[in-house]
Amino acid sequence: MTYSYLSHLYCPKCQETYKASEPQHLCTCGSPLLVSYDLDKLKEVWSPEHLKERTPDLWRYHELLPLQDPTYKTSLGEGMSPLIPLPTLQTDMNIRKLHMKDEGIIPTGSFKARGAAVGVSKAKELGVKELAMPTNGNAGAAWSLYASRASMESTIVMPVDAPKITRNECALSGANLFLVDGLISDAGKIVAEAVEKSGLYDVSTLKEPYRIEGKKTMGLEIAEQLGWNVPDVILYPTGGGVGLIGIHKALKELQELGWISKDRMPRLVAVQSKGCAPIVEAWQQGQRESSFWKNSETIAFGINVPKAIGDFLVLDALYDTHGCAVAVSDYELLEEQKGIAQKEGAFVCPEGAAAFAAARKLRAENWITAEDEVVVLNTGAGIKYPDTVHIEIPVLQPGDSLQTKKTIR
Amino acid sequence: MTYSYLSHLYCPKCQETYKASEPQHLCTCGSPLLVSYDLDKLKEVWSPEHLKERTPDLWRYHELLPLQDPTYKTSLGEGMSPLIPLPTLQTDMNIRKLHMKDEGIIPTGSFKARGAAVGVSKAKELGVKELAMPTNGNAGAAWSLYASRASMESTIVMPVDAPKITRNECALSGANLFLVDGLISDAGKIVAEAVEKSGLYDVSTLKEPYRIEGKKTMGLEIAEQLGWNVPDVILYPTGGGVGLIGIHKALKELQELGWISKDRMPRLVAVQSKGCAPIVEAWQQGQRESSFWKNSETIAFGINVPKAIGDFLVLDALYDTHGCAVAVSDYELLEEQKGIAQKEGAFVCPEGAAAFAAARKLRAENWITAEDEVVVLNTGAGIKYPDTVHIEIPVLQPGDSLQTKKTIR
Repeated sequence: MTYSYLSHLYCPKCQETYKASEPQHLCTCGSPLLVSYDLDKLKEVWSPEHLKERTPDLWRYHELLPLQDPTYKTSLGEGMSPLIPLPTLQTDMNIRKLHMKDEGIIPTGSFKARGAAVGVSKAKELGVKELAMPTNGNAGAAWSLYASRASMESTIVMPVDAPKITRNECALSGANLFLVDGLISDAGKIVAEAVEKSGLYDVSTLKEPYRIEGKKTMGLEIAEQLGWNVPDVILYPTGGGVGLIGIHKALKELQELGWISKDRMPRLVAVQSKGCAPIVEAWQQGQRESSFWKNSETIAFGINVPKAIGDFLVLDALYDTHGCAVAVSDYELLEEQKGIAQKEGAFVCPEGAAAFAAARKLRAENWITAEDEVVVLNTGAGIKYPDTVHIEIPVLQPGDSLQTKKTIR
Repeated sequence: MTYSYLSHLYCPKCQETYKASEPQHLCTCGSPLLVSYDLDKLKEVWSPEHLKERTPDLWRYHELLPLQDPTYKTSLGEGMSPLIPLPTLQTDMNIRKLHMKDEGIIPTGSFKARGAAVGVSKAKELGVKELAMPTNGNAGAAWSLYASRASMESTIVMPVDAPKITRNECALSGANLFLVDGLISDAGKIVAEAVEKSGLYDVSTLKEPYRIEGKKTMGLEIAEQLGWNVPDVILYPTGGGVGLIGIHKALKELQELGWISKDRMPRLVAVQSKGCAPIVEAWQQGQRESSFWKNSETIAFGINVPKAIGDFLVLDALYDTHGCAVAVSDYELLEEQKGIAQKEGAFVCPEGAAAFAAARKLRAENWITAEDEVVVLNTGAGIKYPDTVHIEIPVLQPGDSLQTKKTIR
């Protein structure tokens, strides 16, 4: 058996193929590229039995990942995040089974670690010395830290408004970090220019084909954690949508391998904010691509993406699985965030909270039925967003007693 | 086989025994109580083979944990945090093998989750309805969130200076949260009074016997992750010292069970800050207990404990394993924190950074030799402490290019 069954790259839009043995970015037609594996060959030699002795991280699926030489594996122990049952919330929402895939329990505190681990490892294998990207925060944090782990240079540009904690992470990693007094699109232009002038390796969302393979492992893990079954519905907070595309790809590959049934695919749900809902708008109109969302605004920074480069792949996944797209307000997601902490003890990020709010909404509309088994992706730790919590707390003086204070209240 | 081989509680100071079937706090002699298991019986029926099919969390060791009825298990997927090799840092320090046990990758972002998961589960089993504790931050965050998960009330008192993120966690959990304009000792007095007046269940450090059993699982995991071997040295940032006591207890129990060799115990190292080093002082003087450290001050909030209730157990563990205690300065730990991020891509907490700085110091003194295998505990995620990072970052305007800016710098 070989370490990876990587075969080649292909364009999902024009079907052109590319060699995976050298660095590749977008297709000449402008589309992101996807990774293809020799599933027929892999099917003959690989079974779930092989996973039993492997460590609980995403590299347990190395046959289905693009890295060919494990020497270049760049890992901080990412993956196999818990799939947590939420009994109180499921009763509250009247859903048969509700689980949270908790991506807060991962290096760098967000699901971006998966894409970075696989993307940096593959870049290292391809001989890349310096990578560059614009970021709204979490992706830059993950890629710059994994780059350091791989002894690779990184250049990161982020808006001044991006969460301070993610800025700390990039700065501490030793990245060439720049803030821009503007939006992520301004950061993107600055990076694009630097890439062109200096030959840096561009790891902007979907501009290299391997990040999606890292994100894909969320789908592989959900299936394994459910005993090689799939739920009825998976909800995913959607900015760039890489994770949703990845989960869809993962489940298709598992079907090809015969590890899960070909008869059943979960309905995938793209969750967005009402302040930035281009995928929702496109899905409602039955479009194959989204339009740029003007003046986008939401407290859920990670899903503030006005026009995703992979939007057509997200929409494909929704149509293919009879899924849907739904938007929630900042108020709804903040209420849900509070409710989840109080009912289940989990402090989810605003993006994850949006996905729970969407589940509640879809249940109310009976799009999710009382009989469904539902998995919600929480894409990061709530602790990364200290500014979303506003609760008044009484201050005591030394020697005060709680009794007194309670009466005063 | 039964779920737990819990036998009874005992006092490590005066040897008095107590029933585990009802709530217990300190011994009448004032010492914390420890949990005893029926290891002779367990030895006959349990082997590492049993663990292979179990999920990667701390409940895989349920036979060695105090919860007797799994119905009361209160879990958010905690445990089996990665043991990460640090090849660059180990070369830098000239140590044969250096690993980090990364407790940042756990619910609530700190190792306190382990104690809370097991402590809250057992409290629930014992019929507790409302718990109370003073906290410097992370413990309160963990216990209040796990209490919510168990539908239990919690009363938490923390200094106004405790990290804001941990305050958020407590507040969001729905705890009865109070700030005190003073120190943790002031918080402790307020909680003690409330416990006495209102009969709340006191879960202050070591005032209930089960937190240590949760922390113990760090030791079980290290042994399992090294293939049922132990390293030569384990370094642990020591405030209350519960984790160090727990790791020592765990390894003793594994020796009794015959899962690891009786001939070898790692040298345990208690790491403190120069601004609060009571254990170090006591160890240097060969004392069995520490003295209160006046005017303690350190940026590593979690190890700012002037006098630990379990100090004698920490010192016992050091003497028993031929370990030592060592203090580092805030400057040293902040430099180490930066170095680890740049060399290995890991953003550790200040307390974890202190333990790495101590490893470097002990290696320089040749107390750690070039032939040793060393495990350092990083007790939490660096992202929980945004105020420890101060790095100047250049700000660009939209349309600027990196080239220009680099020249200006």
